[in-house]
Amino acid sequence: MTSATTHNKRYLLADRAENRAVKPSDFTLDTTPLPQPGEGEVLLRTLYLSLDPYMRGRMSAARSYAPPIELGAVMIGEVVAEVIESRADGLKPGDKVLAYAGWQEYAAVPAKACERIDPILAGDLPLSYFLGVLGMPGATAYFALDTIGKPKAGETVLISAASGAVGQVAGQIAKLKGCKVVATAGSADKLAYVTQELGFDIGVDYKNKDAKTLAGELAQHAPDGIDVFFDNVGGVTHDAVMMNLALRARIIICGAIAVYDRLGQPDTGPRWNRQLLAKRALMQGFLVSDHRARYAEFRTQMADWLKSGRLRYKEDVVAGIEAAPQAFIGLLAGANRGKMLVKVAT
Amino acid sequence: MTSATTHNKRYLLADRAENRAVKPSDFTLDTTPLPQPGEGEVLLRTLYLSLDPYMRGRMSAARSYAPPIELGAVMIGEVVAEVIESRADGLKPGDKVLAYAGWQEYAAVPAKACERIDPILAGDLPLSYFLGVLGMPGATAYFALDTIGKPKAGETVLISAASGAVGQVAGQIAKLKGCKVVATAGSADKLAYVTQELGFDIGVDYKNKDAKTLAGELAQHAPDGIDVFFDNVGGVTHDAVMMNLALRARIIICGAIAVYDRLGQPDTGPRWNRQLLAKRALMQGFLVSDHRARYAEFRTQMADWLKSGRLRYKEDVVAGIEAAPQAFIGLLAGANRGKMLVKVAT
Repeated sequence: MTSATTHNKRYLLADRAENRAVKPSDFTLDTTPLPQPGEGEVLLRTLYLSLDPYMRGRMSAARSYAPPIELGAVMIGEVVAEVIESRADGLKPGDKVLAYAGWQEYAAVPAKACERIDPILAGDLPLSYFLGVLGMPGATAYFALDTIGKPKAGETVLISAASGAVGQVAGQIAKLKGCKVVATAGSADKLAYVTQELGFDIGVDYKNKDAKTLAGELAQHAPDGIDVFFDNVGGVTHDAVMMNLALRARIIICGAIAVYDRLGQPDTGPRWNRQLLAKRALMQGFLVSDHRARYAEFRTQMADWLKSGRLRYKEDVVAGIEAAPQAFIGLLAGANRGKMLVKVAT
Repeated sequence: MTSATTHNKRYLLADRAENRAVKPSDFTLDTTPLPQPGEGEVLLRTLYLSLDPYMRGRMSAARSYAPPIELGAVMIGEVVAEVIESRADGLKPGDKVLAYAGWQEYAAVPAKACERIDPILAGDLPLSYFLGVLGMPGATAYFALDTIGKPKAGETVLISAASGAVGQVAGQIAKLKGCKVVATAGSADKLAYVTQELGFDIGVDYKNKDAKTLAGELAQHAPDGIDVFFDNVGGVTHDAVMMNLALRARIIICGAIAVYDRLGQPDTGPRWNRQLLAKRALMQGFLVSDHRARYAEFRTQMADWLKSGRLRYKEDVVAGIEAAPQAFIGLLAGANRGKMLVKVAT
């Protein structure tokens, strides 16, 4: 903490953007005095703020698995932060922690709400990885495949939003399990990244295609059908893959970014009940927070894969808390290249 | 076999009834000489013909889990039959068997395609039960709950088409497991049957209601949500239940009779991906034929429940092969009261 720091910049939710795209004016920047930690609390300085699609759902008042953010409240978000003042046992200045401190530079939070980052586990890996491949998105990929997808060697796995924070990890795990990985994404450079750098087998651009056209393309690349569908996007891609299920396919419903701007409305499009019936397929919703108890196992495995070079990981980092709204809007539009992060301080 | 019998009456598929309701002229009655069994075959006289909703799917040319019936071919269907002539080891005249002999009075079929009915297991139970509670519909209820629904005591189970061949058995199994059973059906007398005679807890009439109205009604009867949804019908009932899922609900996609007259078209209506995600629900397609290897276990358990009076079962029987088309059309419209059967001979 430099002696000059006396203020905290933060973003408040100004508008829920119901049934339309998010725009910069949905967030209000304000500046407050530096928060003071109370008894049992620590003062955190955010190093990295994670931007994730789930935040779109929390902006909306539509009923979901978590309550919406209040209008006028600080935008939620997980951060990697440094403890700069401690009024709690167990955490001391200089410790690095994970916390849901939100879109702001500083936060006073209960020590109990912080998770200390193990420096031995982290080793030489970037701290920001704890918001991605070693954090919520990585855990999503890991546990969704472990508990629902259950990919077996020789099976065909389709990953949508394949270059995103979850997709790039999920596809690599499927490759480590001996699967053929078909990736969908919305640009040639995203597909070049996942096929050339991550080793996914096939890349298919879904942009400007209707479901039937896309389904025809997928059928060529997965002639025996898709065994595991890791769905991060919903929409047209979902429809196209559902037309190509293999017998006893497993469909992980992990995200629906394609429809997040219509959360107040019914999710239109065909229903796939008859396809599920014919293929005896399993479609299951997934929330990573159900798997908190197994995070240590996940982080150990993932750190091992990263350190041994068996798993690669790409981040898209912008600088300064002021960059958060535009970066988030870009994320929702698919403009990011890799896990979207805001580097708030060094 | 009476000496007078020299002809066989049978129904052939005349029209696929694509995208419209089935009508009597979709089936052609013809009369042929009595078939002659070849080497390894038996001549069967049908006692009971089972009429089931899956036959509607096989009439259509729309792709599904089984190939369509050829135009001009005998309508498919499972029967309980008596062996009247045998040119095969292992079966002798007088034996009772199950076989897919179709909508006809007599059939020559390979002995290997017949399943002999165990007279000891059958005991005093009607032979027709082997086409219902001890046959495919009963097995559907039993295995779909065992492998997907997994109802636990205290949970709320919703059964659609609750008075049908599958529904009446599924609801009773759920009651035996200690669940609260909410039934939907399309008439007051069907609901009276399942609540007053079978002991289901709540009966809800779905007819002439939109999904939102029906959902509101279900919410009153299942305030903590629906844990297991045994879906035999699809359509509006499906939508209404999906609005009322409990956390970690299991949805068995077993049938979609509500949309069988539109098999060539996409199954319209809202998609429930966001609901599956929020509730971490599991939706899985079910086909009973995957569970053939466990039929002995199923029949033993079911016969025990029937003989001890813990399970009850209702049939709707019409007489004579000529009654089949109209009875089948009635079944698709929900006019039947219990498992639909044609008594072809005594």
